[in-house]
Amino acid sequence: MNKKGLAILMRTRMKPSIVADSTKISGNFINNDVSKMLVNSEGNKNSNEPRKHNSVGKFSALENHQRGFELVRESMHSAITMNKTEVLDTILNKFSEGYYDLSIEDRCKLVLVLAKDYDLNRIHVRDLIKQYLGLQLPADGVEDEGLLSTFYRTERNLRHALQPNYEVLFERLNTHPGGLKFLCVLRADILSILEEHNIPSLRALDSYLKEKLITWLSPAALELHQITWDDPASLLEKIVAYEAVHPISSLLDLKRRLGVGRRCFGYLHPAIPGEPLIFIEIALLKDVAQTIQEVLWDDPPMSEYDATCALFYSISSTQPGLAGINLGKFLIKRVIELVKKDMPQINTFATLSPIPGFMKWLLAKLASQSKLAEAANSDSTCSSEEPAASAFRENVLTVEEEKELLEAARDSMSGRNGMEVMLNLLTSPNHEWSESDQISVILKRILMRLCARYLLQEKKRGKALDPVANFHLQNGAMVERLNWMADKTEKGLSQSGGIMVNYIYRLNDIEENAHSYLSSGRINAALDLQRLVERT
Amino acid sequence: MNKKGLAILMRTRMKPSIVADSTKISGNFINNDVSKMLVNSEGNKNSNEPRKHNSVGKFSALENHQRGFELVRESMHSAITMNKTEVLDTILNKFSEGYYDLSIEDRCKLVLVLAKDYDLNRIHVRDLIKQYLGLQLPADGVEDEGLLSTFYRTERNLRHALQPNYEVLFERLNTHPGGLKFLCVLRADILSILEEHNIPSLRALDSYLKEKLITWLSPAALELHQITWDDPASLLEKIVAYEAVHPISSLLDLKRRLGVGRRCFGYLHPAIPGEPLIFIEIALLKDVAQTIQEVLWDDPPMSEYDATCALFYSISSTQPGLAGINLGKFLIKRVIELVKKDMPQINTFATLSPIPGFMKWLLAKLASQSKLAEAANSDSTCSSEEPAASAFRENVLTVEEEKELLEAARDSMSGRNGMEVMLNLLTSPNHEWSESDQISVILKRILMRLCARYLLQEKKRGKALDPVANFHLQNGAMVERLNWMADKTEKGLSQSGGIMVNYIYRLNDIEENAHSYLSSGRINAALDLQRLVERT
Repeated sequence: MNKKGLAILMRTRMKPSIVADSTKISGNFINNDVSKMLVNSEGNKNSNEPRKHNSVGKFSALENHQRGFELVRESMHSAITMNKTEVLDTILNKFSEGYYDLSIEDRCKLVLVLAKDYDLNRIHVRDLIKQYLGLQLPADGVEDEGLLSTFYRTERNLRHALQPNYEVLFERLNTHPGGLKFLCVLRADILSILEEHNIPSLRALDSYLKEKLITWLSPAALELHQITWDDPASLLEKIVAYEAVHPISSLLDLKRRLGVGRRCFGYLHPAIPGEPLIFIEIALLKDVAQTIQEVLWDDPPMSEYDATCALFYSISSTQPGLAGINLGKFLIKRVIELVKKDMPQINTFATLSPIPGFMKWLLAKLASQSKLAEAANSDSTCSSEEPAASAFRENVLTVEEEKELLEAARDSMSGRNGMEVMLNLLTSPNHEWSESDQISVILKRILMRLCARYLLQEKKRGKALDPVANFHLQNGAMVERLNWMADKTEKGLSQSGGIMVNYIYRLNDIEENAHSYLSSGRINAALDLQRLVERT
Repeated sequence: MNKKGLAILMRTRMKPSIVADSTKISGNFINNDVSKMLVNSEGNKNSNEPRKHNSVGKFSALENHQRGFELVRESMHSAITMNKTEVLDTILNKFSEGYYDLSIEDRCKLVLVLAKDYDLNRIHVRDLIKQYLGLQLPADGVEDEGLLSTFYRTERNLRHALQPNYEVLFERLNTHPGGLKFLCVLRADILSILEEHNIPSLRALDSYLKEKLITWLSPAALELHQITWDDPASLLEKIVAYEAVHPISSLLDLKRRLGVGRRCFGYLHPAIPGEPLIFIEIALLKDVAQTIQEVLWDDPPMSEYDATCALFYSISSTQPGLAGINLGKFLIKRVIELVKKDMPQINTFATLSPIPGFMKWLLAKLASQSKLAEAANSDSTCSSEEPAASAFRENVLTVEEEKELLEAARDSMSGRNGMEVMLNLLTSPNHEWSESDQISVILKRILMRLCARYLLQEKKRGKALDPVANFHLQNGAMVERLNWMADKTEKGLSQSGGIMVNYIYRLNDIEENAHSYLSSGRINAALDLQRLVERT
């Protein structure tokens, strides 16, 4: 090792180790906070206690803090500019470890430094562009050796010059042990910083890193792994921690999901061992399930030989830093191929999916529309209705629905109109509405219709508003069926009034569906659902 | 599947299957030729027999041939322009299978089409550049939202526009099963086409594909695998086929190289299973071996516990298409780490390497210099020596060496000067010089000195002329020792007069050596060797 490298090592060793090792395994802010709380509660003399007791201690703690940040910043700079491989490994380690130790504020500061100070060199780009424009476009069919050579060379140089300097950091981290995982954490941080500081340089950093991650996480680089009860506990623990759709309640629950009549597949990357980036849970059933209860608590399980349907009932991504990178699409495609090969008798591939955005959308709609309706009512008494407001007005309910609703809820719930009554019913504590047969029979018809409308018609930038719907539709599924009281858990009732949806993957239509959805926003749905929507 | 996709499939199915399946596993021209010979000798009615018998048959064979090429060309076009994933897989298969079936000439034609017709769109690039130049450079420290947004967007667009259209084909193949292997074959083809058609567009295609391959074959994506006798025969077969340095003579020889006191490690990529991209063979020894005989035929092997040296005696790349991509550097580094961890008593990491370019260089030097010397001699009799010729003249031998040589060879070999005598000796049939004690004693001194000069001083563009020397020096090794009669095989005597060299990897110096070699061409060598060179 050379002197410069040694100096860097020495300097880094002198750094006070403020946060205990436990934070180093933390992947994101939340875990980091938890770890810090743990460390703090055990009492960490170096950093926290002095702060409370005297101003001298406080000053030195602040100083240490500032120095810690500067050291990480310096190691980041070296990681981008250094050229010696051996020292580089050390620097990349120091940088990533240092970064994990930083507070949220310091991570934010550092990410902004990266976005702005390690951007591309615009002066250099302009110089190359001028050179390039000085060249004569070669005529078609003429192969002028020298001229073409210059063209290709200048184009390559320009292409390279247009890569920001942080490209080097990303490339180096990608080939560094633990680096890909670090980049996922970094992107998760960037995304959460973007929520508060949505500035162009940060957006450019994010989109560049995202492009890189897409290349590195290409399906060819991922390994499809069937997760079973024989897998290491350290991996199964991840499944429990990251299951985002239907939380795993116990070891028994987990064992059941990996046992007879069930499958679980994950995508692993060789550089992030023992931690699937995304995983999917499957139930092998006779028919497409209508409620999640059937899937999670069918006891004893049916024989796999009788199964004709593979039901995807949960798909969870473990890396917030991979947001917007659709690994699920390839996972589903490969899993379908695998299951079909293993069990040719299975001919239906469907999901039983939550509708996470339905209630949020509906409650907002009811609130705003009921207000507009009231305003219009009071205005109409003075006969001076504003046309602007009326343009946005719609009665979410049909006349009949409103009548039924007001009738049924007369004793239990008040409201100035049907929409307000419905709003009050749906937001009443403990989802009382779902306990009353009389109310829920009426709400069922209304909610099912509005849910179909939400899934099939409500869009954002031409795509389905509901994120899960958007996910399956862009993968080529179609909306098959809505299921009433399919998820009676607190979460299910709050998110979607207990409704769940079956999307179906018909192998022959997948490509056509995906294409027409992505190009024109067309949502393919079963006839029943289309009729439901038209029923207004 | 949609109609267009179906049409493409149908059309491809109608293609006559000229070459049997056996060619599909072939990786490069040579194998392909062999396979075709096999197929031809078995008699293929469709394509070959009619050609010999009548002109109508000949015409239709030619037509078929032309059509075959056009179909591959069309599938290449679809592979670049298509947007439907399912159809895409089929097209990529058809394209790569079709490509493997093409003749050398047709592959060449197709590669030229790819290089020229799927280059970047220069008109589009110019448009974007004009847009870009119209933007005002943002002042330092000023964060003008809108302006910066436009900047980043235009830069990204320009970056994308500067990517040639064949980028799409490479990216798609990389994520396609078998595609990475195909890209390696494609690059091997490009490299061999470049030897005859060294044109700018082809060079640009090659350098772009090389950049891509470097990214995809980053060490993080490669798996280090210890190859043992327990590995599948299909993998071991590859080791036998690709061992480039010391051919494996028998199964017993192979078993020995994987047995006690020996190690073999390979780098595998998940997308090219069962076929290491590069592998290295190691002997665990007491001392740094001086001859390859000791390494290949030590019987019985010594105990591994007594070993203090790990000797790299062979490193072979299996993919001609990865030329210029240094995977060996990372392989050696990781193998050293692994061996050190497993066997801490091993403290010397050395090679026993061939010097493949030595004789070629020396014979050319002797021939040209002996001619120049003779010309000068005859000129000097007319006393009109040309200064231009004399500037290139040197006596390769010292006065003493020349005297000894002429003396010793008086009876066996003639020549007008020492250099010509030496040239004649070295090129005599069956390396007779090596059989004569008297001659070889004298040649030893001369050849060892000139070999040291060749390794330490002969450069090409600032790098060692010898490719193996260049490889180890850029990895950070130093030249340690020359070994006389270290490889007495026909190949060893022809390439390097039987001399082999030990390069040494000293862990503490690797980075410094690599850096000073790569930046200034400095070659680090043992003192003995440096003195040998100065002995002129």
